[in-house]
Amino acid sequence: MGNADNYGYPSMMNNNNGENTGIHRVEIPPPQPFFKSLKNTVKETLFPDDPLKQFKNQKPLRKFILGVQYFFPIFEWGSRYNFGFFKADLIAGITIASLAIPQGISYAKLGNLPPILGLYSSFIPPLVYALMGSSRDLAVGTVAVGSLLMASMLGAEVNPTENPTLYLHLAFTATFFTGLFELALGFFRLGFIVDFLSHATIVGFMGGAATVVILQQLKGILGLEHFTHATDVVSVLRSVFSQTHAWRWESAVLGFCFLFYLMLAKFLSQKRPKLFWVSAMAPLTSVILGTILVYITHAEKHGVAVIGELKKGINPPSIMDLSFGSKYMTTAIKTGIVTGVIALAEGIAVGRSFAMFKNYHIDGNKEMIAFGMMNIVGSCTSCYLTTGPFSRSAVNFNAGCKTAVSNIVMALAVMVTLLLLTPLFHFTPLVVLSSIIIAAMLGLIDYNAAIHLWHVDKFDFLVCMSAYIGVVFGNIEIGLVMAVGLSLLRVLLSVARPRTLVLGNIPNSMIYRNVEQYPNTNNVPGVLILDIGAPIFFTNSSYLRERISRWIDDEEDKLKSSGETTLQYVILDMGAVGNIDTSGISMFEEVKKNLDRRDLKLVLANPGAEVMKKLNKSKFIETLGQEWMFLTVGEAVEACNFMLHSCKPISSEDGSQKWSNNV
Amino acid sequence: MGNADNYGYPSMMNNNNGENTGIHRVEIPPPQPFFKSLKNTVKETLFPDDPLKQFKNQKPLRKFILGVQYFFPIFEWGSRYNFGFFKADLIAGITIASLAIPQGISYAKLGNLPPILGLYSSFIPPLVYALMGSSRDLAVGTVAVGSLLMASMLGAEVNPTENPTLYLHLAFTATFFTGLFELALGFFRLGFIVDFLSHATIVGFMGGAATVVILQQLKGILGLEHFTHATDVVSVLRSVFSQTHAWRWESAVLGFCFLFYLMLAKFLSQKRPKLFWVSAMAPLTSVILGTILVYITHAEKHGVAVIGELKKGINPPSIMDLSFGSKYMTTAIKTGIVTGVIALAEGIAVGRSFAMFKNYHIDGNKEMIAFGMMNIVGSCTSCYLTTGPFSRSAVNFNAGCKTAVSNIVMALAVMVTLLLLTPLFHFTPLVVLSSIIIAAMLGLIDYNAAIHLWHVDKFDFLVCMSAYIGVVFGNIEIGLVMAVGLSLLRVLLSVARPRTLVLGNIPNSMIYRNVEQYPNTNNVPGVLILDIGAPIFFTNSSYLRERISRWIDDEEDKLKSSGETTLQYVILDMGAVGNIDTSGISMFEEVKKNLDRRDLKLVLANPGAEVMKKLNKSKFIETLGQEWMFLTVGEAVEACNFMLHSCKPISSEDGSQKWSNNV
Repeated sequence: MGNADNYGYPSMMNNNNGENTGIHRVEIPPPQPFFKSLKNTVKETLFPDDPLKQFKNQKPLRKFILGVQYFFPIFEWGSRYNFGFFKADLIAGITIASLAIPQGISYAKLGNLPPILGLYSSFIPPLVYALMGSSRDLAVGTVAVGSLLMASMLGAEVNPTENPTLYLHLAFTATFFTGLFELALGFFRLGFIVDFLSHATIVGFMGGAATVVILQQLKGILGLEHFTHATDVVSVLRSVFSQTHAWRWESAVLGFCFLFYLMLAKFLSQKRPKLFWVSAMAPLTSVILGTILVYITHAEKHGVAVIGELKKGINPPSIMDLSFGSKYMTTAIKTGIVTGVIALAEGIAVGRSFAMFKNYHIDGNKEMIAFGMMNIVGSCTSCYLTTGPFSRSAVNFNAGCKTAVSNIVMALAVMVTLLLLTPLFHFTPLVVLSSIIIAAMLGLIDYNAAIHLWHVDKFDFLVCMSAYIGVVFGNIEIGLVMAVGLSLLRVLLSVARPRTLVLGNIPNSMIYRNVEQYPNTNNVPGVLILDIGAPIFFTNSSYLRERISRWIDDEEDKLKSSGETTLQYVILDMGAVGNIDTSGISMFEEVKKNLDRRDLKLVLANPGAEVMKKLNKSKFIETLGQEWMFLTVGEAVEACNFMLHSCKPISSEDGSQKWSNNV
Repeated sequence: MGNADNYGYPSMMNNNNGENTGIHRVEIPPPQPFFKSLKNTVKETLFPDDPLKQFKNQKPLRKFILGVQYFFPIFEWGSRYNFGFFKADLIAGITIASLAIPQGISYAKLGNLPPILGLYSSFIPPLVYALMGSSRDLAVGTVAVGSLLMASMLGAEVNPTENPTLYLHLAFTATFFTGLFELALGFFRLGFIVDFLSHATIVGFMGGAATVVILQQLKGILGLEHFTHATDVVSVLRSVFSQTHAWRWESAVLGFCFLFYLMLAKFLSQKRPKLFWVSAMAPLTSVILGTILVYITHAEKHGVAVIGELKKGINPPSIMDLSFGSKYMTTAIKTGIVTGVIALAEGIAVGRSFAMFKNYHIDGNKEMIAFGMMNIVGSCTSCYLTTGPFSRSAVNFNAGCKTAVSNIVMALAVMVTLLLLTPLFHFTPLVVLSSIIIAAMLGLIDYNAAIHLWHVDKFDFLVCMSAYIGVVFGNIEIGLVMAVGLSLLRVLLSVARPRTLVLGNIPNSMIYRNVEQYPNTNNVPGVLILDIGAPIFFTNSSYLRERISRWIDDEEDKLKSSGETTLQYVILDMGAVGNIDTSGISMFEEVKKNLDRRDLKLVLANPGAEVMKKLNKSKFIETLGQEWMFLTVGEAVEACNFMLHSCKPISSEDGSQKWSNNV
């Protein structure tokens, strides 16, 4: 780069081989029109995955077809569908149906809703998802945590036993708002909001919710009739142990037997992945066995509660039941949004995980639109909150599903059940459903993940634990708010308190690195090198000003006590400063003034494009002098050394600075 | 560094001169005990300025003395005080008293409080600040914006004309909470909360508030009796123009004359800084002239409203007036906190600016404790919200003050006024006070700063304008919330959407930089180099995964269309990644899997200490292979090239890669 200005360091422009290396100029990027840079920023913020890429340079008709395929991926993969796929999807679909029926009934009970809603919700929503979803492995259905969350949030306003119709209508309305919220997030490409639930939050939250759900099952297992509406561990245990006289041993024995069977089946499947169907079929087998047992022994007359009458026929419309004018509207909206976030977090994470395994791409925002439509249509057809539950999707994946057709097969199997088989569930004991829920929930308490968090990142462990403890001892919302709050606090702190590190020279090189990470680095006499670790915004500019001045004080104290050379140059490595605002620029101006007063020279190394643009516009480059900006810390140190020793080559005791020859 | 493992690149370990340079190992920092690192983090977060440094290694008595001096700096500088200082402080103190008296009365009127409160507030609080404050230039007093904010927030609940006693007691209570809040912020070292008001927010907010205050003065200038309680421009103008019949020309003429005189004095002082006293004395001169004029002409009988009776005597105690049990308690607390933040922002900024000029240090948290005590004591002695107003402090500075003794002189001058001179203000026309306020406020509308923001940073301009428009067309709180919300959104976006940049090789060097900023860089064939620009947290890990895969897609498309070599290596420059959480580590694991499937090799360059620690604990280093981590991008590219060309030295068409010889 022969055209670099030489700023008066003549000997530095050529190394001993006569080669032109030396100082490189820091460039100010070419100016960009305001609207172009605005467009780029918006695009990078809302469309980082460039979803319209495929529409570029296409004819109108082709664009229309691509558009239809974009919103209804079934038209895209449908044309490639073949009989081999169908065979696989058929098996997978029947397998997940056998899981969906008992789980659906159980979770509806958990949500204090009529059991039949669990079956309705496994019929229409999977069909909608099959049309619009882009995951090939996701199996649609209701989820335990979502059901419980709905029960706890709606139950705080309306008592489901005293006022079941109002409660049911509120559940539909909440589901409608869940759908609307998901649709809006997807449509306005705000899917990143779901990212604010960190991995640690989800581990803690899911574990806590599973614990709460298991505790709730004590009602079914012990055959209790009265039970607390609270979900925290203290209330539940008090409720259970205050009525030991009402415990029914028949129910408990049955429950523990089925739980043992389900756990055994699960254990077997985990040991031998090929036997996945043992675990997948176990719930249905339990239901059949339990039902036959009750039917034969008439245990329903001896304290074993049963499901009772289930209405025959497919989903009745419920669009007229959406109660928009009711005074519980805000509760419905709040419930809809909170359950929507939780449902999305699970559904998106599940879809993404399986897509990773099979190496295809999932567009999170498109998935949200599919989830949203699925819940909106569901809320009009007597379904409640659905998403892509992990357990069911894992069974689907293991059963070898190829496309979303497995969801269609499941929906058809559920339809047949609704039309013909509902009377068979009359004698199904509730305790079996409780066992099924407990077996499913035990898998969600991921203590290994919590231990891993403790080892890797203590703060994430704290977030995880606060979510768990908040959910178990407070309630679900408290746990969620605590965990999200803590996670955000950490992010804000990382912005408000960016790291500043002292850099030293790695022997025999021009490389400068953090002296704590690389203890064998050497100081450069008379030069303090600081690495600024974050964009400089108003949130951290005061802190950085204070911190830089403290580093300088410390360095001067150290030099004074050791009697070495005095400090002359302060080099700021700006490599990690991606952006700066006007508060940040004022900070630089103040630091410059402060250094001038102390007879120190401020030097900047490697300022980035955005920073150079703004330093230039604010005339700070003129104040500083462009000759005090360098492309690398190495070059900055060289220039400082050159000025310090006025042209004399440097060699410290250990020969660590080679200068010029070593560029 | 001869002990670096050579990882099977034998020829790279020595350059042509037989010197040992080559590959440097990325080091994992030595493990730190959990509690030590926790302590460091807390210290860095809450005590970045190391306030206890001076207490280290001192005897107990000395520690006690230092402690007293810490909280009461007067004991520190008091011993060095001399007659020369006193002469300067006397002149400065009398000058600011001449400004404080009319301003105090004006601002108290603005806050719908009895005018005498303005004098009370210039007596006790300055004395408290002189004991505890560490600024030498700050002059304590009430502020226009704070007074207006208090009037608007308290006035929304209690009508000051209908219920003046309750309103007054609420004002004292709010002031008490302001003090408590400031004290708590300082004591718990949470002063950084004030930093969340960015420079742009303050410019816009102050400009908007000044506009609103000026509009309010139309009441006084036009001699109107009825006036709207709203502060927005639409309501005020409607109120003014709906009663044109009530305008009093006598009042208006008087007002504009004095305004002209005040502006002229200000203009003169700006042109010749030595004549600062002309501007400083102008308000008092106006008051004296106006009072004499009214007294002689009996203008008070011709539509020129006057102050009227002012109570003689110093501050009565008001501690019994603090109404903690009242139902307006929450209003008082809210008002106290909001006005506290605004008052602190102004006071701290003013103190810091003048300390910068004179090169001494101010501890923000200590200042907050002083402000807090000043307001708590003030609220018990009939004072309302005080801080360090810019205009008064600037006059103090220009008058040559040396220490906080100038505040004591001012307080004594005000005391004399309170004891002896209050009857003289009986005939002071209100219109003169309006003129004084307008003249002071015009200086706060800093349109040059807004233009500067537009040039340097469009987003900051947006923040500034939203604060201005929010305050002028909505109300003060709306403007504040909008501006703070927008500023925070930007910070969160910078965390949620970090920049990722493609790096290229700067010719004839081992340096790799952003290809957009340095258009003359060269691509390295077969290698994609990405710079990740922020700590990797849950907020951005999904985005980064998508973005990295999009960069790879784009690069592969480009290479495919140009028919060059295929992509083989993806180097991530981690220099700017200061920290990582478990979501970030999962992201790396997914990226690694994704690249493995595409037959690409992931290479990390320059991971920092925190990142190395966590990658190590999570075993990601083992998954990746430590030999794929390099100290610099240059070394990473060398190693990739070495593998690509199996030991053959590289020279592209333009000879840009020299390799090995050039390290």
